[in-house]
Amino acid sequence: MLVVMRQDATEQQLREVMNVIEALGYEAKPVPGSQRTVVGVTGNDGRVDSSRLEALSGVLHVIHVTPAYSLVSRERRPDTTVVTIAPGLQFGGAAVVVIAGPCSVESEEQIVSTARAVSAAGASCLRGGAFKPRSSPYSFQGLGKRGLELLALARRETGLPIITEAMDEAGAELIAELGDCIQIGARNMQNYSLLKAVARLGKPVLLKRGMAATINDLLLSAEYILAAGNDQVILCERGVRSFDPASRTMFDLTAIPAVHSLSHLPIVADPSHGTGQRDRVIPMSRAAIAAGADGLMVEVHPHPENARSDGAQALYLEQFAALMHEVRAIAAVIGRTVARAPGTGEAGIG
Amino acid sequence: MLVVMRQDATEQQLREVMNVIEALGYEAKPVPGSQRTVVGVTGNDGRVDSSRLEALSGVLHVIHVTPAYSLVSRERRPDTTVVTIAPGLQFGGAAVVVIAGPCSVESEEQIVSTARAVSAAGASCLRGGAFKPRSSPYSFQGLGKRGLELLALARRETGLPIITEAMDEAGAELIAELGDCIQIGARNMQNYSLLKAVARLGKPVLLKRGMAATINDLLLSAEYILAAGNDQVILCERGVRSFDPASRTMFDLTAIPAVHSLSHLPIVADPSHGTGQRDRVIPMSRAAIAAGADGLMVEVHPHPENARSDGAQALYLEQFAALMHEVRAIAAVIGRTVARAPGTGEAGIG
Amino acid sequence: MLVVMRQDATEQQLREVMNVIEALGYEAKPVPGSQRTVVGVTGNDGRVDSSRLEALSGVLHVIHVTPAYSLVSRERRPDTTVVTIAPGLQFGGAAVVVIAGPCSVESEEQIVSTARAVSAAGASCLRGGAFKPRSSPYSFQGLGKRGLELLALARRETGLPIITEAMDEAGAELIAELGDCIQIGARNMQNYSLLKAVARLGKPVLLKRGMAATINDLLLSAEYILAAGNDQVILCERGVRSFDPASRTMFDLTAIPAVHSLSHLPIVADPSHGTGQRDRVIPMSRAAIAAGADGLMVEVHPHPENARSDGAQALYLEQFAALMHEVRAIAAVIGRTVARAPGTGEAGIG
Amino acid sequence: MLVVMRQDATEQQLREVMNVIEALGYEAKPVPGSQRTVVGVTGNDGRVDSSRLEALSGVLHVIHVTPAYSLVSRERRPDTTVVTIAPGLQFGGAAVVVIAGPCSVESEEQIVSTARAVSAAGASCLRGGAFKPRSSPYSFQGLGKRGLELLALARRETGLPIITEAMDEAGAELIAELGDCIQIGARNMQNYSLLKAVARLGKPVLLKRGMAATINDLLLSAEYILAAGNDQVILCERGVRSFDPASRTMFDLTAIPAVHSLSHLPIVADPSHGTGQRDRVIPMSRAAIAAGADGLMVEVHPHPENARSDGAQALYLEQFAALMHEVRAIAAVIGRTVARAPGTGEAGIG
Repeated sequence: MLVVMRQDATEQQLREVMNVIEALGYEAKPVPGSQRTVVGVTGNDGRVDSSRLEALSGVLHVIHVTPAYSLVSRERRPDTTVVTIAPGLQFGGAAVVVIAGPCSVESEEQIVSTARAVSAAGASCLRGGAFKPRSSPYSFQGLGKRGLELLALARRETGLPIITEAMDEAGAELIAELGDCIQIGARNMQNYSLLKAVARLGKPVLLKRGMAATINDLLLSAEYILAAGNDQVILCERGVRSFDPASRTMFDLTAIPAVHSLSHLPIVADPSHGTGQRDRVIPMSRAAIAAGADGLMVEVHPHPENARSDGAQALYLEQFAALMHEVRAIAAVIGRTVARAPGTGEAGIG
Repeated sequence: MLVVMRQDATEQQLREVMNVIEALGYEAKPVPGSQRTVVGVTGNDGRVDSSRLEALSGVLHVIHVTPAYSLVSRERRPDTTVVTIAPGLQFGGAAVVVIAGPCSVESEEQIVSTARAVSAAGASCLRGGAFKPRSSPYSFQGLGKRGLELLALARRETGLPIITEAMDEAGAELIAELGDCIQIGARNMQNYSLLKAVARLGKPVLLKRGMAATINDLLLSAEYILAAGNDQVILCERGVRSFDPASRTMFDLTAIPAVHSLSHLPIVADPSHGTGQRDRVIPMSRAAIAAGADGLMVEVHPHPENARSDGAQALYLEQFAALMHEVRAIAAVIGRTVARAPGTGEAGIG
Repeated sequence: MLVVMRQDATEQQLREVMNVIEALGYEAKPVPGSQRTVVGVTGNDGRVDSSRLEALSGVLHVIHVTPAYSLVSRERRPDTTVVTIAPGLQFGGAAVVVIAGPCSVESEEQIVSTARAVSAAGASCLRGGAFKPRSSPYSFQGLGKRGLELLALARRETGLPIITEAMDEAGAELIAELGDCIQIGARNMQNYSLLKAVARLGKPVLLKRGMAATINDLLLSAEYILAAGNDQVILCERGVRSFDPASRTMFDLTAIPAVHSLSHLPIVADPSHGTGQRDRVIPMSRAAIAAGADGLMVEVHPHPENARSDGAQALYLEQFAALMHEVRAIAAVIGRTVARAPGTGEAGIG
Repeated sequence: MLVVMRQDATEQQLREVMNVIEALGYEAKPVPGSQRTVVGVTGNDGRVDSSRLEALSGVLHVIHVTPAYSLVSRERRPDTTVVTIAPGLQFGGAAVVVIAGPCSVESEEQIVSTARAVSAAGASCLRGGAFKPRSSPYSFQGLGKRGLELLALARRETGLPIITEAMDEAGAELIAELGDCIQIGARNMQNYSLLKAVARLGKPVLLKRGMAATINDLLLSAEYILAAGNDQVILCERGVRSFDPASRTMFDLTAIPAVHSLSHLPIVADPSHGTGQRDRVIPMSRAAIAAGADGLMVEVHPHPENARSDGAQALYLEQFAALMHEVRAIAAVIGRTVARAPGTGEAGIG
């Protein structure tokens, strides 16, 4: 940490800053410059709360040289963490994982037929919302526990492991029982009570980036889960808020290489929420793979025009199958494969 | 709602759109233009889920003419809702309410001495965090239940009602028991499970705007609380994410007149989180009152340089007292007063 | 400047960084920490181009401790610069200056009647566009030189000095001849060729903040004008791009205290462009004054419903007169007055 | 265009709105709904200035159903425009065009050796700044005319056509004489005087998206050039402002499919400015091609650590050569090739 003094800071103010640093148990190393003095704070582990120093007279601002997160940092753990959500299905290895399925689970027929079709096309994981966070209280909120049971049924039929969203602790417990990976949605990325509760359940967690979350915020939220003893965390880019109404959100694919350089956690991309329009999901899925994403999460629906939520961004089954061909070819260009579902006898073969 | 057709949409596509509208139980009224056709959807109450229509072929986009919220809308209830958090203390009337106190409750001495000082200066409500949502798991997370007990003690000493934040249902229940108004923080503005739980407790709620929340999002989150039967909701602007690192957040004071025109709910401003720097809190507090805010929430600490959180934005006690003089004078310019705390015998007198 | 080394940087990489710093003519002062080394760069004046250092191996990033601007900095010149646009009319003193007038000059009758009305209500400066930058090539682009002549006529009738926008060097020369202060609009804030040309004309300049400009960017653009020898620069906040369609732009009033702490240049606020809606212009004008703005720029039109541009944000003449009463009263609360136009015999009396 | 009336609008206000619409020469078609009336405006060509209608009493807001641009719209011209910048080198066809070179032209040796290397690796166009818009007046501003002459020399040596930036009309005229395509930088995207001047020169124009420009703004700026009679316009995504300091800008690759659906103009991507860091340029170049970009603009420098500007984002020559292999392979996946430079005898062969 560095404390930058104002140009007009007095000797007395500088001394007070150094005293507080030492009272906090660190070493203070002043670096006088031609215009101002900067005080280096050493002997700390990057977690110093800077507010006491920022509040002192004569201080211009405080610069965090080492990020506030630690357990998720690649500087601390150089090898990518491999997250296993079912026997033989891993995020963070050479094979990219494609998660596909409808926005919401709507009926047995809908979820089972979708699961079969995406499995046939090469998806290795099933998505589908049972608990739906909706901006409006009057929108469809999901089938709840019944939705989870239908997902479990679709898994029995196809072998595809299940990733689905929890909105609260009670829902997370049900998913831990019936599903394979608990998704924390963008709106709950900084719901720290939920992060702590989910960490305790010992299941893999897919953590979506909040709509106004910096990469630093995302990594700090993941740090909550690792700090509670669970390192099986997959990050997910799904678009952030921007000034341009041309897209529902701004899909920040640079987050992929950025997270890869800062953290050892795998990161997947969700072009369906990231773009909000079917016609853009296909090019942006290709782009995500080309950028190095460890997986894709794509909404697919047998009849998007009848979907109870987000139909405009759901791919038709045929579109998804065609996309899988392109995904495999682009993965191959950068030396990767596409993961196969557990039990299909071809794990790791694209 | 209006469905805008593509310029190249076919007759058949237009007919299909009209069929779906009618199948949903509404009326479809086509308006052919020189370049394209727009289809008006009437007979609805503003809550139509547009995704089924957006997914149809030939549709360019769907425009929501009436907002998705209803109960919070001023079109529906023209008079401002008055929220009473303690006998004689109301938000939404002519008197603006000043809520002051430290970021976190740290000790009995700290909270009681702050409460006495802000009360003497004219604040009518006490703030102080017992449960603290912090971006880093390693930052101080608050004293929990003990913090609530200290707040209750400070209320006994000064008569100031208490507003404090809940991060989960268990915390909200404790606040409902020991406090006067439950704050939902920016990070939980779209934690719908928490919104529903809090609504059921029947206490007034202060709902902060999320860092990437549009005014529409904020009003929809409030709608969750009203839809659950609780209309005692105070909104709060506290700054949103922006591209400019010159401020911790961008403090959007235009939200004050915007909310006043769209909704009947009162709205207060939090210039401490909105600016993040003590020297900016004073001018922006004045600005918030001048913009018509129904109240202010200001962080004050007897010794900001020793604060365990957010010391850089806390006012010194003397600064707060000076600010109150300016706040009263500016309120008077626009025909308002500053509320006095219950039991001080001067309620409503600035 | 500080060069932050990667945690895994080698001794050799550190030495290379120090060599480059010294080759550039500065001193390198390494500060080893428990996790990484930071190298202080001293003996520079804040203008070092960091790209050579950022490109070196082992460098994590470079931190600019001293801003890249210098002449505009309050650290360099502690007293606020007073900008005189006409004898007796100054920005940056105790009196706030209200600039009023239509978006565009449309006709002699329109501009003269508006000038008379705003002068009677207490404005001290006239605005009105002759050259209009419009997002669409099909929107009204202004009357050009004829517009400037009409402004000059209105000045003869009322004594109000003229501020109007230049879009290019030729237009700026005409304004230098016929007007009193050259406005650079938000879209041209980083049109450096125009900034240099305008600086050479020796007239006062009102520089509007670009829609994606940080405060730092704004000050650097002003630095271009001061570096060319002209310190008569007034800054202007007029709203920036944000994610919320609830307002045309996000009006960043915190820019007022932020600029006041960083720079000696005066800053005014334009709530008309900052909000885009008549009903919001009034509260946000009051807020701007309360926040400490050195002036206001407000659009006023005798018949907004017939305006050729931006009618939705223009105040009616009566609204403007009412606003001036509130502006005077709020200015008085913070110890300021409202400037009177030159020749009205009451300069500096609110 | 649609005029949405307030819920409490009177009959009289509705009639006035319809009168104004008819006075403007259009037809007014009211669509009464259960909550409010919407008035369709037909008989217009999408270019109606809405401000007169927005300013009327009883109007809630005005919705533009047809965009304000016209000539650039794909609805108007379904086939992609092919822009030819030199005999045999075209943007907008099946072959993607890779433009490479240093940020700034620094010396004959630097530009010629770079041109030779990028040509050998497969680039088909040379970039290099002679006029540099820099945020700080103290940063290197380019070699000016001498830089253009060195670019022309490099073209003679390699056959690579030249794209370089103009900051004002005088510079644009020099580029029209010595270069092949005039670049308008992000900071000048809304410098309408420059857009008009450049359009008149009759050379192809590469128009970069401004840092706060929506896709709609970008297309309107292009419309200025087409409206002046020049349809040889290439658009360029180069990153926009965002709240996340993790990247210099947010690189909005969704702009590629968005522009392709809205406009017939080709669009290229600049991952160097879009990411600002060498290590991210490579994955994001691949992603841009996968997303369907019609070309790439990449900064390459023989010695990035000695570059006079933006060294941190310049690729080493070897990195660029390796990238070209991946670019060719990904282009092939989506049925495209990589264009070869004119005169290399392999035009259109990847």
